Amino acid sequence: MDRRHFLAAGAAATASTLLPAAAEAAASDALFQDVNFLSDGQALTPREYAALLDKAVQAGNFAPDYYSRGGAIEALEATFAARLGKQAAIFLPTGTLANQLAVRTLAGHNHRVLVQAESHLYNDSGDAAQALSGLTLLPLAPGRAAFTLDEAKEWAERTAGGRVESRIGVLSVESPVRRRQHEFVPFDELVRLSEWAKSQGIRRHLDGARLFNLPQHTGRSVNEYAALFDTVYVSLWKHFNGASGAILAGDARVIDGLYHARRQFGGGLPYAWPLVAGVEGFLHDYEAQYARAWEAADQVIATLEASGRFTARKLENGTSLFLLQARGIAPAALAERAQKHGVLLPRLPDEASEIPLQVNTSLLRKPPDAIARAFLGP
Amino acid sequence: MDRRHFLAAGAAATASTLLPAAAEAAASDALFQDVNFLSDGQALTPREYAALLDKAVQAGNFAPDYYSRGGAIEALEATFAARLGKQAAIFLPTGTLANQLAVRTLAGHNHRVLVQAESHLYNDSGDAAQALSGLTLLPLAPGRAAFTLDEAKEWAERTAGGRVESRIGVLSVESPVRRRQHEFVPFDELVRLSEWAKSQGIRRHLDGARLFNLPQHTGRSVNEYAALFDTVYVSLWKHFNGASGAILAGDARVIDGLYHARRQFGGGLPYAWPLVAGVEGFLHDYEAQYARAWEAADQVIATLEASGRFTARKLENGTSLFLLQARGIAPAALAERAQKHGVLLPRLPDEASEIPLQVNTSLLRKPPDAIARAFLGP
Amino acid sequence: MDRRHFLAAGAAATASTLLPAAAEAAASDALFQDVNFLSDGQALTPREYAALLDKAVQAGNFAPDYYSRGGAIEALEATFAARLGKQAAIFLPTGTLANQLAVRTLAGHNHRVLVQAESHLYNDSGDAAQALSGLTLLPLAPGRAAFTLDEAKEWAERTAGGRVESRIGVLSVESPVRRRQHEFVPFDELVRLSEWAKSQGIRRHLDGARLFNLPQHTGRSVNEYAALFDTVYVSLWKHFNGASGAILAGDARVIDGLYHARRQFGGGLPYAWPLVAGVEGFLHDYEAQYARAWEAADQVIATLEASGRFTARKLENGTSLFLLQARGIAPAALAERAQKHGVLLPRLPDEASEIPLQVNTSLLRKPPDAIARAFLGP
Amino acid sequence: MDRRHFLAAGAAATASTLLPAAAEAAASDALFQDVNFLSDGQALTPREYAALLDKAVQAGNFAPDYYSRGGAIEALEATFAARLGKQAAIFLPTGTLANQLAVRTLAGHNHRVLVQAESHLYNDSGDAAQALSGLTLLPLAPGRAAFTLDEAKEWAERTAGGRVESRIGVLSVESPVRRRQHEFVPFDELVRLSEWAKSQGIRRHLDGARLFNLPQHTGRSVNEYAALFDTVYVSLWKHFNGASGAILAGDARVIDGLYHARRQFGGGLPYAWPLVAGVEGFLHDYEAQYARAWEAADQVIATLEASGRFTARKLENGTSLFLLQARGIAPAALAERAQKHGVLLPRLPDEASEIPLQVNTSLLRKPPDAIARAFLGP
Repeated sequence: MDRRHFLAAGAAATASTLLPAAAEAAASDALFQDVNFLSDGQALTPREYAALLDKAVQAGNFAPDYYSRGGAIEALEATFAARLGKQAAIFLPTGTLANQLAVRTLAGHNHRVLVQAESHLYNDSGDAAQALSGLTLLPLAPGRAAFTLDEAKEWAERTAGGRVESRIGVLSVESPVRRRQHEFVPFDELVRLSEWAKSQGIRRHLDGARLFNLPQHTGRSVNEYAALFDTVYVSLWKHFNGASGAILAGDARVIDGLYHARRQFGGGLPYAWPLVAGVEGFLHDYEAQYARAWEAADQVIATLEASGRFTARKLENGTSLFLLQARGIAPAALAERAQKHGVLLPRLPDEASEIPLQVNTSLLRKPPDAIARAFLGP
Repeated sequence: MDRRHFLAAGAAATASTLLPAAAEAAASDALFQDVNFLSDGQALTPREYAALLDKAVQAGNFAPDYYSRGGAIEALEATFAARLGKQAAIFLPTGTLANQLAVRTLAGHNHRVLVQAESHLYNDSGDAAQALSGLTLLPLAPGRAAFTLDEAKEWAERTAGGRVESRIGVLSVESPVRRRQHEFVPFDELVRLSEWAKSQGIRRHLDGARLFNLPQHTGRSVNEYAALFDTVYVSLWKHFNGASGAILAGDARVIDGLYHARRQFGGGLPYAWPLVAGVEGFLHDYEAQYARAWEAADQVIATLEASGRFTARKLENGTSLFLLQARGIAPAALAERAQKHGVLLPRLPDEASEIPLQVNTSLLRKPPDAIARAFLGP
Repeated sequence: MDRRHFLAAGAAATASTLLPAAAEAAASDALFQDVNFLSDGQALTPREYAALLDKAVQAGNFAPDYYSRGGAIEALEATFAARLGKQAAIFLPTGTLANQLAVRTLAGHNHRVLVQAESHLYNDSGDAAQALSGLTLLPLAPGRAAFTLDEAKEWAERTAGGRVESRIGVLSVESPVRRRQHEFVPFDELVRLSEWAKSQGIRRHLDGARLFNLPQHTGRSVNEYAALFDTVYVSLWKHFNGASGAILAGDARVIDGLYHARRQFGGGLPYAWPLVAGVEGFLHDYEAQYARAWEAADQVIATLEASGRFTARKLENGTSLFLLQARGIAPAALAERAQKHGVLLPRLPDEASEIPLQVNTSLLRKPPDAIARAFLGP
Repeated sequence: MDRRHFLAAGAAATASTLLPAAAEAAASDALFQDVNFLSDGQALTPREYAALLDKAVQAGNFAPDYYSRGGAIEALEATFAARLGKQAAIFLPTGTLANQLAVRTLAGHNHRVLVQAESHLYNDSGDAAQALSGLTLLPLAPGRAAFTLDEAKEWAERTAGGRVESRIGVLSVESPVRRRQHEFVPFDELVRLSEWAKSQGIRRHLDGARLFNLPQHTGRSVNEYAALFDTVYVSLWKHFNGASGAILAGDARVIDGLYHARRQFGGGLPYAWPLVAGVEGFLHDYEAQYARAWEAADQVIATLEASGRFTARKLENGTSLFLLQARGIAPAALAERAQKHGVLLPRLPDEASEIPLQVNTSLLRKPPDAIARAFLGP
């Protein structure tokens, strides 16, 4: 896997695929100094990561898991269950597995699943839900972030009209939607979809890989979101800087015993703690930190626009991403200039007119002025 | 998951399930001091593990992987491929997934798989090969470690006699066999099985989770074993003290592209390196270290037997495990006594007449005399 | 299953779902007298069916099949293979199984299948391709009969852009399309799709359940259609008045050996001949007979329109179906009147403004004048 | 499929695989004259079959099914449900599908199934239960007809000891066992197995393809057998001379709605009645007829043994099959001689010392003396 391949693909991809910033910064000796606009999280270097892990295990009460059960993993599951207002939670090594086990378990014998055509589950799982679980994903709203209740009902009617009975077992919604520049699905639409699904006996799953960014942009708490769904998946490696990992939270009767399926799929790691030992440290005040990161971003934007050399654009229903237009400097040159000041930007081809920039908590590593100067140059 | 549950289960289980020794030893401040007879490897404590990880990332050329590709993971794959004499190798997060992807890929459209009834694949994978890949595992030789060529042929004939054509696609052999006290399958039988399978167009997989222990006991190199099979799985967390992980090695046309299936099953970790960054350090002279560990074990045994208070028994076709009979002290009391000297033993119920002890490279942490004293008491 | 249920559903359904005409006519003693506008074929009564079967087995050389192989079944397979210009053909008990085995076999390891959202395969098979074969059907062109090459390419691009490699293995096209009032997919579009698919290594399947009606409406022979596809399914119970059954034709290396899968799915009938013993009799001059049926239908239409009491409407890209508007009489009353004259019509609710009528070879059982009189009344 | 292939295979196979007798006799003009010792039933010729079908549809109230529902099929389902003492029954085109749907449905999420290693389900279904339904069949008692409760418990314990939870969902028993020369499983063992399974929450399926032969040999009624199981499959083409078809009977909540799965698997025939229209005629007094057939067989055996040229042997726990040793004439010559007298025997190679003969109701077509004469010659 060649890193330059990612960078070259930058114009088409959203910023979060442009990584790995960790490698970019690995040359630097000083830890926790670099700001990145590339990632959902801090894009820790191996040294930064190892330093955090070492700190975690020095805590007097640190206990390892065993086959992903007990110890630090069980504690993390309990923390997330409480934060999301759910009875139980289970650690899984990837979000791909979290989504798969969620829809597979919720579906039972009703094997049709309503999903967004632009969702990770539909596009980026190698058709795992179909190939490994025999489910039929019905792709709604191609080209858009959200589908409406009317669109869901249309597919429900088509399903009811088949000559052989098929039933919709699950409604799965991703929000924010990575493939649509991290746009969110409006809360009121989620309420309508959730109530309708409930009335139809359809179970509900939220792919909330980046759920903890939503409150900042919608005024709704993670609890309010989670309450609309039977199960919620949250990523551990995006906002919370684990090396990998996911949480799936829900009712105890859905979650308990799911470690058997985790192991069946090959996800029962003998020791999982080295992937997530630092997560709790990032989780406890994440929403406040992310809000502060946006304050910093807004200051940077203001400074840049005041210079007359940059224009920033935010998206309707946007979350962590904004688009920056630079005048008088090509994107690659800008990225090179900024990197000298410890600020990592995507390296786009010259023809790119707007640079997608991700706001994350690494923005708090330097003062906004210093960050802006990295764009403006000497 | 309660650790006492494991210990209580000790009489029935082999020692390697009695863990986690890491937790046992976590109270100690000094690193790398404890000897364990419980595990396939060093049963590192979290602090020991973090210390090794920190050391690994300080190396000037340490590069992280990205979605389990490139960097340290790619390097590890190359190292194992070379050691096993195979064209290619892929990292997988667990051995369960390694075995699943191997038999699934080798089988192609011939969905019957010959396996040992006592193998991990047949017993301890939640029927993943059947449930997720639609394979039919044919369980041979219940109650024994190895099956013979004649037994394999008998099932091949039964298969050929079915009214609907089914074909045996894969022969899968585990050696050593964990459920049979780590007994090995005789090399000559493997040769016969492999040649027959080849002549029948049947692909061959070796579950060699603990393959690197075999040369010490059979005089055959890991290369000689690997050469008999299309694919070989080796565990990274057993002998080599990773937190988790497995290597699957084979021809390039089998292994290349398998990272797609890895991701489909939910095993494509964004960063895998924290699970295995210390593995190469243990791998490079593992066979010599394991031989030294058995020299140490033999000295300990000699001292113990000379005392007149202990009798040791080795198994026919045995590998890492021997059985110790203690006179005048109950197993739990013996374990308590030894732990005070930094030697960890399984805690069996009083009625256990023999204590299964695992030989591993942690035995090199103390002189044999010191280890023997831990058994004999003050 | 209540027949009235079908009739009540008439307004929404196309005529071919309104059956069973056989039962309607079962009271009559005279055989082969009734004309029906309900079905793809002659809607034989049990007595008519038994009479044809008896005649078939009196032939000197009639040989039964055994487990759906040999004898009359093998002969029928050979006949269809020759008619379709393919190397081989296999009998299957239903079209549902024919489509399933075709896409499953052609797909190999490339499990995505391009289909029409309005196809039988997508809507009326209980998601069998997904649930039993782990395929992912991509539904194109909801609400329309045909999709274009551009639409196919759009989904091919989406597939290529997934984070985990998935490949499109099969392009499956149904024509005529039952759920779109038997409209056909234009031949030139099929050529474009087929050439593109071939260039991409995508295999091609034609659901031609009603293929033998196409030449009358498009001027293209069944051979020209079949040549564009790797496999072609033709129904035996629609135009050819079998009790059930389907033919799947294609290259020998695709078709040979497929009887094993037929049996695995439970479709290996010990004796299949009683389902299709009369089929060859209808097949040999079917296209000429269907052309004559349309001549008769056109005469009936002309007579009806000349009366000033009826208006007929044909569909663009239509095949066997036309729509009749009656003035001065409700649909149910019209159906009752016609039945007295041995002409069977769908019984639609009063609010139906147009009656869908199917043209089939039963129209040749009476002179056009007599048929028209059944509509016009005394 | 070459008939001679079957005949050549005669020495190894049981008589019921030696068919098709229908073809053998097709030359004869007189109907219902031939006696066969080859088959479970009367091995009707096509003309005989067509004659019976014609008779059935002349009945005043004959109603066809539609997509295998309603009419004659519904009536047949009701008849069998009543005869077996079950709430409901469903027609399926083959026994392979009946067994598949039974174990699939009963298993629910507990995917392990206890079966005989010598059963049709394990050997002759192309691993359909594994490949299409993801079940794991555990093969008990290789080489024997029946397994004991102790053997069942042993596999239950092995299952419980796996590292990932798997559960046994179904116990499936075949009796009589075709692959073991139609031996039956002792009734008392069935009672023990059934009670244990019930106590463990394991559902129970009986593959009673030839169930209606058991009462003659065990003194237990079909009702007593059926009462021990949740579902029972009975073949329609064996004893009851349908062209194909099976009945699956059980509780309404298991059977109702199963027609959706029937269609999903491709077994929803548009018209099924031509396969089974004559079945009720054979069913109503089958057990009495089969008893009379054995009276006739015993008379034939007595006459043959009295001649000093033949010895007959019955099997312990045998049902429809006995073995005949002929002195002074080779098996093939004997078969040729008998055929001239309208008695069909298997054509075995010369080295066969015993000829397996099947007793069925075709023995009632001729007086026992006439049948014996066919063996003894002029």
